[in-house]
Amino acid sequence: MANDFVTLPEIRRVARKRLSRDVWNFGAGGSETETTRRRNRRALDRLAIRQDVLVDVREIDVSTTFLGIPLSMPVMIAPMGGLVLFHHQGDVEMARGASMADTLVALSGATGWPVEDVAKAGPGPKLFQLYHHGDRTWVADLLARVESSGYISVCLTVDTQLYSRRERDIVNRYSPRQAMSMAPNPRGPDPNYQARLTWADVEWLKKTTRLPIGLKGILTARDAKRAVETGVQVIWVSNHGGRQLDHTQASIDALPALVDAVAGRAAIVIDGGFRRGTDVIKAVALGANVVAMGRAILWGLAADGADGVACALDILKQELRTSLGLCGQTSVRNLRPDSILRVDY
Amino acid sequence: MANDFVTLPEIRRVARKRLSRDVWNFGAGGSETETTRRRNRRALDRLAIRQDVLVDVREIDVSTTFLGIPLSMPVMIAPMGGLVLFHHQGDVEMARGASMADTLVALSGATGWPVEDVAKAGPGPKLFQLYHHGDRTWVADLLARVESSGYISVCLTVDTQLYSRRERDIVNRYSPRQAMSMAPNPRGPDPNYQARLTWADVEWLKKTTRLPIGLKGILTARDAKRAVETGVQVIWVSNHGGRQLDHTQASIDALPALVDAVAGRAAIVIDGGFRRGTDVIKAVALGANVVAMGRAILWGLAADGADGVACALDILKQELRTSLGLCGQTSVRNLRPDSILRVDY
Amino acid sequence: MANDFVTLPEIRRVARKRLSRDVWNFGAGGSETETTRRRNRRALDRLAIRQDVLVDVREIDVSTTFLGIPLSMPVMIAPMGGLVLFHHQGDVEMARGASMADTLVALSGATGWPVEDVAKAGPGPKLFQLYHHGDRTWVADLLARVESSGYISVCLTVDTQLYSRRERDIVNRYSPRQAMSMAPNPRGPDPNYQARLTWADVEWLKKTTRLPIGLKGILTARDAKRAVETGVQVIWVSNHGGRQLDHTQASIDALPALVDAVAGRAAIVIDGGFRRGTDVIKAVALGANVVAMGRAILWGLAADGADGVACALDILKQELRTSLGLCGQTSVRNLRPDSILRVDY
Amino acid sequence: MANDFVTLPEIRRVARKRLSRDVWNFGAGGSETETTRRRNRRALDRLAIRQDVLVDVREIDVSTTFLGIPLSMPVMIAPMGGLVLFHHQGDVEMARGASMADTLVALSGATGWPVEDVAKAGPGPKLFQLYHHGDRTWVADLLARVESSGYISVCLTVDTQLYSRRERDIVNRYSPRQAMSMAPNPRGPDPNYQARLTWADVEWLKKTTRLPIGLKGILTARDAKRAVETGVQVIWVSNHGGRQLDHTQASIDALPALVDAVAGRAAIVIDGGFRRGTDVIKAVALGANVVAMGRAILWGLAADGADGVACALDILKQELRTSLGLCGQTSVRNLRPDSILRVDY
Repeated sequence: MANDFVTLPEIRRVARKRLSRDVWNFGAGGSETETTRRRNRRALDRLAIRQDVLVDVREIDVSTTFLGIPLSMPVMIAPMGGLVLFHHQGDVEMARGASMADTLVALSGATGWPVEDVAKAGPGPKLFQLYHHGDRTWVADLLARVESSGYISVCLTVDTQLYSRRERDIVNRYSPRQAMSMAPNPRGPDPNYQARLTWADVEWLKKTTRLPIGLKGILTARDAKRAVETGVQVIWVSNHGGRQLDHTQASIDALPALVDAVAGRAAIVIDGGFRRGTDVIKAVALGANVVAMGRAILWGLAADGADGVACALDILKQELRTSLGLCGQTSVRNLRPDSILRVDY
Repeated sequence: MANDFVTLPEIRRVARKRLSRDVWNFGAGGSETETTRRRNRRALDRLAIRQDVLVDVREIDVSTTFLGIPLSMPVMIAPMGGLVLFHHQGDVEMARGASMADTLVALSGATGWPVEDVAKAGPGPKLFQLYHHGDRTWVADLLARVESSGYISVCLTVDTQLYSRRERDIVNRYSPRQAMSMAPNPRGPDPNYQARLTWADVEWLKKTTRLPIGLKGILTARDAKRAVETGVQVIWVSNHGGRQLDHTQASIDALPALVDAVAGRAAIVIDGGFRRGTDVIKAVALGANVVAMGRAILWGLAADGADGVACALDILKQELRTSLGLCGQTSVRNLRPDSILRVDY
Repeated sequence: MANDFVTLPEIRRVARKRLSRDVWNFGAGGSETETTRRRNRRALDRLAIRQDVLVDVREIDVSTTFLGIPLSMPVMIAPMGGLVLFHHQGDVEMARGASMADTLVALSGATGWPVEDVAKAGPGPKLFQLYHHGDRTWVADLLARVESSGYISVCLTVDTQLYSRRERDIVNRYSPRQAMSMAPNPRGPDPNYQARLTWADVEWLKKTTRLPIGLKGILTARDAKRAVETGVQVIWVSNHGGRQLDHTQASIDALPALVDAVAGRAAIVIDGGFRRGTDVIKAVALGANVVAMGRAILWGLAADGADGVACALDILKQELRTSLGLCGQTSVRNLRPDSILRVDY
Repeated sequence: MANDFVTLPEIRRVARKRLSRDVWNFGAGGSETETTRRRNRRALDRLAIRQDVLVDVREIDVSTTFLGIPLSMPVMIAPMGGLVLFHHQGDVEMARGASMADTLVALSGATGWPVEDVAKAGPGPKLFQLYHHGDRTWVADLLARVESSGYISVCLTVDTQLYSRRERDIVNRYSPRQAMSMAPNPRGPDPNYQARLTWADVEWLKKTTRLPIGLKGILTARDAKRAVETGVQVIWVSNHGGRQLDHTQASIDALPALVDAVAGRAAIVIDGGFRRGTDVIKAVALGANVVAMGRAILWGLAADGADGVACALDILKQELRTSLGLCGQTSVRNLRPDSILRVDY
């Protein structure tokens, strides 16, 4: 069936039809007025790509590496909680799809699937996204399992100090918590438990795991700099896809200053509004190593499980390859900030 | 019933259903083309909030003080005339709701409720908004009653030199004057009576009451400066929610220059387009002490009286607390202008 | 009946109902894509009015003088051809309405009414708008009649070198020429006859009439300067309400540079998108002496003849007076450029 | 029938009615999100034309020359593949229409019509647009036939390194390839064959034909400069009407820097979003020699064959002539950059 999909909007359409209104809204929505969510897209739509011509683009290399691991393209699957709502085999199918497309998947900490099962879902690389909603013993135990399961990195989400007001869910009297409650935290998930997190926790995390650690939800140069100085290896520029703090800056607008602050001392992941190959070119040109996509892939999962995920990633790869050739580039690794022009409208 | 409301848009929806078209329009509308009204929102929507992370935000303090009085949050209820149209116990219910939410309410001078009755409606602090539509004897008498009733301040509205052209009301041949005519001014209200007001009246007011006085409707640094020099203790940045002069600057755009001009010598209140917790963060970061909200609370009154008012304020408090934590702040008092970024779209 | 109208949009609504689709479109439309027409409004909507307070505004003087003639407000009726399509007594009713409102009316050269009849329609001042679509003898004869009929000025329209492509009329296969063909030019109107006009014709005109002459359709400082140097007494900033050259600058955006170029050596009239009292304040503050309004008054004529015209003007006067008081001004003559602020959205 | 058309929107409407949904979308659509397509228009709509008056515009000359060839106006027909889908006599009718309007037509390389047949379709000048989708022998043979058929120039399209993702076609499962497969390339068209092109091919082309050569799809000053240095005589500023790389800069926004880079050493053609006479004025004023139009003329072909094409061109000529007179210019050749003003909205 996935073979039927030839564009991303089609996949989204099928997903919307298959999902209940509540689950669709949980996935598609943002927090409060959804200004951050809209702003992410608008900011991307105000950037232009420089079109160079007469470059031999028969060989286009969209592959990259991330923490030394080869990826088929600078696109990974963002961690998403509650995947079981979108497919009964949730995280496992998502990971299978990522492996089919030879790219990285992030397993959300807000899941009930054992990390070991997801690790075995496919041969591709996995990253673990940590919600620190337990005490340090609980986290240390979890990380030990993550390590021994072969995850390549652990990224702590830091923009979820509190659970935001997702108005679509609130209005629908819909709680996705149940779906997220299979997490192995014996206390059950406490979305506000992370309110206690400080840089001391990052230092502790650094000492507790031998995996490269990342911080997901960084939007300021100051925090990025401090993260690097604390030994963080992955700076994840994110406003949680408009699902946490409403009215933040767009991720892509925050990126350049963070790239400067990091100065090559850590890998940079970005998410927030990315939907197309051209969006990926923009982020990579401005200094991101990998773009994490959530909703665009989630609709693939909902539409056709792992096949749908792989199909969405494949379309993205086609888009990326085509757009890269059309702007006269043979490799994503050669993109530079001067490939991007600002448009005032 | 108020317990059923979990978002502000729901409250608005219920209010709209309950009110006659005419009363709804009287409350929701602005003057003439409503450009000021729309501009207030647009200006707020062009500001972004800086997202800091890894700050311990378990304890979030949204409380503040205003003229030495503690408030549960930097949000107060703006004075609104004609409340009886929205609830048969109008101003009394509004004041009750404010007390339930531990915040300040401003009693409009365009009301028929005796100031004493409203004072007794609840234990919380009250501010009296004065329309100087009588002679000085009448004002002095009124202020004596306001003082002895325990109001904490009296704020003279200065942007109502003339009554504006509220086109929705004019088109509907609807006059809210009746509802506003219960004012204790024996002449009945003369909305244009204030055309005579000058700085001399402010000086007289200053001498006539021992309460801190404020001016509501200041939009220029020059007027703010003169107010402070005249001994005014509250500068209220306002364009009357887009209900008086059409085509003014947005309140939030006017704020920074006024904050500079006031230089800490008076408290600063702002209103105009504020609807959400994030809006409050923006204003406070840019230097306002308190944000006054009108319509957002009015719909609470219409939907469920004092309970609806308290419910709306409670949702706002939740929004404010959540957003504050999510931008890495533990207290509204620590917000600074560099928490805010301008967005060009 | 006119007494029933209390807002300008109502008048427009009634006019629209009364007029055939073709005539409505002839009046409401612009040329080609109507970009100039829309731009005129947008430019006005991006300006804000400074709100000053605590000025005694009991006495508000909206009167002004134009070429030494007193007007009840800085608003005049723009010349419009084909008025007979909108009311069977066209230009006569329009002039009657202007007199009722004590303001100036411009008689269009594209009319069939004898200038003498319109002059007698009411006691108020009249201006004659000249289309030079005949030879100089014809023009000289016409001007002699204009002079002896008491018109106060003659303004040559210079932005109608050719008749524009009014696409609504073209699509409707509608020609308003018939209505404009009653002009006393024996050749019938030749809308492209003016293509021959140059500054030499202005010099000739200057010598031919003792009336103050004006040029209507000036949008550049260079042309304004040359006009003044040629002895022109009225610079009329105009893009013909978006009915001639499509994609010009908005009139209000062109104004400041023209005011500088004229440097007080001529009176300045402006038209183009003006609909409300606040628009008038903006133009006068930026240096215009009088704002000419077309469509806003035309709908009054269509809705109720001279009474409708006077009613529209009266509403405008109320708007102007109210807005002037609300921005703390007592006279239109005191408005200055610093009363206006630019808004970027 | 073509005589019935008096505006361009009418022609478009008739074309839309006559074409199948698939063919319409193939013609009207762009690639991916169609951001480039929309941006082309927006950029044009943000430019204003300076209105000069009192210039004798009885004689307006819209004619120009291109590579020494006289054209009735600075508008040519852009090369479009698959014309047979829009009219059974496709390229022949298009060329006939161009001749009727005394302007230049570009024959697309993505066609099945023999270049000789199109050359004979009408007496007017023709340009050949080359897709280098064969080996050099094939190209050289083709160019020999182009030369001997009297084409005035050959322009190599360089923004089609790969065939873009035209989402409307993809979603409709519609392939216009069949219509484009009549090309004389024995291998059939390989839209990605051009991925191999480099500047060396331009040098080879330069040596292979004695015709002036052009490059279509240049958007950067660097490429324009290199083209000129390689001996290219026509720089064609283009983003393929939004049909190749999505998210490029608008053509008109790219133009000024390219004009500077070329510095008069080559002729400049531009396309991308041009629909009206005013658009042509903007491009020519900013330095383009000729504007190529695609869709605006294509609808003429679909609506009424060569007559429809000539009619569309004739309306454009009327628009151009009228607008030129209205901005006080007597010849397109006198337009300069200071005729254009930027508008921020």
